[in-house]
Amino acid sequence: MLKIERALEEVDANLEKSVADLLELISIPSVSGEEAGKPGIAQAAEWLNDALAGIGFSSRVVKTACNPVVLARSDGAPEGGKRLLFYGHYDVQPVAPRDAWTHDPFAPKIIEEDGLRRFYGRGASDSKSQLWSFVEALRAWKAANGTFPANIVIMLEGEEEMGSPSLSDFLERHREELDCNVAFICDSDMWSPARPSITTQLKGLVHETVTIRVPNPDLHSGHYGAVAANPIRILSNILSSLHDGKGRVTIGGFYDGVNELTERQRRRWNDLLEEMDGSAEVSLAGGVIEDGYTAVEAMWGRPTADINGITGGNQGPGGRSVLPGSATARLTFRLVAGQSPETIRTRFRKFVSDRVPEGCNVEFDGPAGNAAVHLSETNPFLVATARGLETEWGQPTVLKGTGGAIPLVGALHDGLGVDCVVLGFILESDAIHAPDEHYDVERFHRGTRSWIRIFGEVREAAAV
Amino acid sequence: MLKIERALEEVDANLEKSVADLLELISIPSVSGEEAGKPGIAQAAEWLNDALAGIGFSSRVVKTACNPVVLARSDGAPEGGKRLLFYGHYDVQPVAPRDAWTHDPFAPKIIEEDGLRRFYGRGASDSKSQLWSFVEALRAWKAANGTFPANIVIMLEGEEEMGSPSLSDFLERHREELDCNVAFICDSDMWSPARPSITTQLKGLVHETVTIRVPNPDLHSGHYGAVAANPIRILSNILSSLHDGKGRVTIGGFYDGVNELTERQRRRWNDLLEEMDGSAEVSLAGGVIEDGYTAVEAMWGRPTADINGITGGNQGPGGRSVLPGSATARLTFRLVAGQSPETIRTRFRKFVSDRVPEGCNVEFDGPAGNAAVHLSETNPFLVATARGLETEWGQPTVLKGTGGAIPLVGALHDGLGVDCVVLGFILESDAIHAPDEHYDVERFHRGTRSWIRIFGEVREAAAV
Repeated sequence: MLKIERALEEVDANLEKSVADLLELISIPSVSGEEAGKPGIAQAAEWLNDALAGIGFSSRVVKTACNPVVLARSDGAPEGGKRLLFYGHYDVQPVAPRDAWTHDPFAPKIIEEDGLRRFYGRGASDSKSQLWSFVEALRAWKAANGTFPANIVIMLEGEEEMGSPSLSDFLERHREELDCNVAFICDSDMWSPARPSITTQLKGLVHETVTIRVPNPDLHSGHYGAVAANPIRILSNILSSLHDGKGRVTIGGFYDGVNELTERQRRRWNDLLEEMDGSAEVSLAGGVIEDGYTAVEAMWGRPTADINGITGGNQGPGGRSVLPGSATARLTFRLVAGQSPETIRTRFRKFVSDRVPEGCNVEFDGPAGNAAVHLSETNPFLVATARGLETEWGQPTVLKGTGGAIPLVGALHDGLGVDCVVLGFILESDAIHAPDEHYDVERFHRGTRSWIRIFGEVREAAAV
Repeated sequence: MLKIERALEEVDANLEKSVADLLELISIPSVSGEEAGKPGIAQAAEWLNDALAGIGFSSRVVKTACNPVVLARSDGAPEGGKRLLFYGHYDVQPVAPRDAWTHDPFAPKIIEEDGLRRFYGRGASDSKSQLWSFVEALRAWKAANGTFPANIVIMLEGEEEMGSPSLSDFLERHREELDCNVAFICDSDMWSPARPSITTQLKGLVHETVTIRVPNPDLHSGHYGAVAANPIRILSNILSSLHDGKGRVTIGGFYDGVNELTERQRRRWNDLLEEMDGSAEVSLAGGVIEDGYTAVEAMWGRPTADINGITGGNQGPGGRSVLPGSATARLTFRLVAGQSPETIRTRFRKFVSDRVPEGCNVEFDGPAGNAAVHLSETNPFLVATARGLETEWGQPTVLKGTGGAIPLVGALHDGLGVDCVVLGFILESDAIHAPDEHYDVERFHRGTRSWIRIFGEVREAAAV
């Protein structure tokens, strides 16, 4: 206990200094997904590498086919102890539309607002404050106690916001270095401003792009609208047949292997929903929820087919009256346990192909998908983490699902056999990916203190 | 007869000179609908104004709110005679994509190809060769016979390819000057390379843009796809319900007032279709033709609802998994006699509004529409024109319908009470509006000769 208390004191004492460093990190425009962001990416990786080395890690910047990973290890830690991996990402979303920002996205300052010491900036919430909270907690533990709380591996990614194109190659090349007893994936959110959470069910994800091509390139719709194929009409017909009147996906075999939600799970999730605040921000008006399920059950526990984009013919302005040669839709499928990404892809392609009229063609495209991940809620590291969060926040930790996917979790869990704990301190109201993204000193402080509590609980539970 | 023969001889003798002038006209980049085309528009208007003045017309360039009209009159013609109006347009479609052109779009030269003396260029077919054929015919008639064949008005428009935004205002302001016994609208096509045609039925046209808005701006589709409204899904459902299984438009009252095609009309059109060559260029595979009608009946005689464009959410590249805040479709309705553009618009908007879920919104936009035009096939000017064409081409003139609309015809016919004859010498295979648009000296020559025959027949029939 003494070690925990000493480390918490160190966190409290160093708060202003650690926040100042965090603001410096946020001021580096490490935008991935834009050519103009490359220098900021390089600068942020070097900055973090120096910071980790300064704390006593053996750290290096590892080049990949895309953006570098900062990879650090605690070489001096006791042999034979448990090894904990911490994951965060230092890249940020693009800023556009810049005009919509009230605050400079790369010049954060502390502003007293709503009783908080808030700071605005791209990456303030997603995910620089997140990664800096565990780095500062590790620094404080070592400063207070002379050593790190366990063998530590830190992996800071620089391309999360662009879909992690080189992540799987990186994991494959560094299997041994990444080997650990538990990986803390710090890129998730709290249940509410007062209540911590751990995400234990993540959906799988399959992207598909469908292009319908008709035999003729652009035709005059006045001349041929009554007789020639219209790819937008064909595509609309297919998309509108993807769901039945009960909100169920009509692709043959789509639900094969999907287990019905247990009564216990339903009860727990629905109880949670009742106390959820902040959900009022999103209106469900006009939405279709699968018959027989509540909103939370559908969001976390049921597979979906979503249309994310559609393009074809005249995009305006102006009234060019054309029958286009092709039309394209972009879809995503969110999978639950029991569904294979490749099987769903195959079945979707068959569903579409069966509905394309003779003489017309369809083309499909989509990157490799990933399956759903269900993490054991009785895993000792997860239980210890929940206890640590509970101690800091004074409220039971919510074990929740998400409709989102974090491909890394599946890769570590299913690919490398690593136990994962997915947590974080983001709030829905932080405006992540949006203008005026923000975070606050109070939450950063309590997040950092949470890690100290987690270190203590994990050491006790796992006899580190 | 002597006058006709003399004029034909003059046309033949002057062919090379008139083609050289035509190529000079085509080389002027008079692109409407692009800011960069403005100087070319002005240059082409001046060039034509000079040319008409040189032939002996009293000509001027009339400014409008958009592009100028070249308006010319034969002041010296005999008083009390019939007045004939000739319409053409000197503006051309944009060139893009420039890379797809094998030939320079604004440097036409004569190339021997397929036994023809072909020339390539934007506007070569649509519509500079068309307007130059009647200008050259009028010049030749006067050169051969000392006077024009009748009182002549020439109207050359500069904004046809961008939807004629200032046309109705121009017609209203120049009612008196445009008053005439017949208007020859030279912007139509031949039935086949060997067979002339006059278009007697033109469909009406209503443009509509529909935007579905859901309560939330962009949402993460992983989090909310299972519960929140997706405007692309709503729009797809609406678009796919626009037609029933028989290919009929399902909008309530859409067919009100539409007369069934007469057996005579059906027989005539279907007979024509059988001898139509060139139709093989367009494949009807995958098209849906309204039950109970042949392709030609549907194209010329039945109203349609066509989707011309659709846009929403992620337009690619990349797989942003978003539930967008809105989705937009652009549609056109092609109307037949008995349908009012404003009634169809109102009924369509009701059809859509009835299908938008509560809590979501729909916005509509669309410029004024125009009704179908049916021209009398027994009008003496039309009959005389058909006879003139027949004499030149040695084949009976086809009286045909079109799915296309020429708003000018409705404005002159319904608005100013002017009889119209819609003809022209374009072919489907000219690549109009497309890269490598072309025409040939032989067709220009016979088109010009056709006008001389028409002048003769019209003078005889109408006692000009």
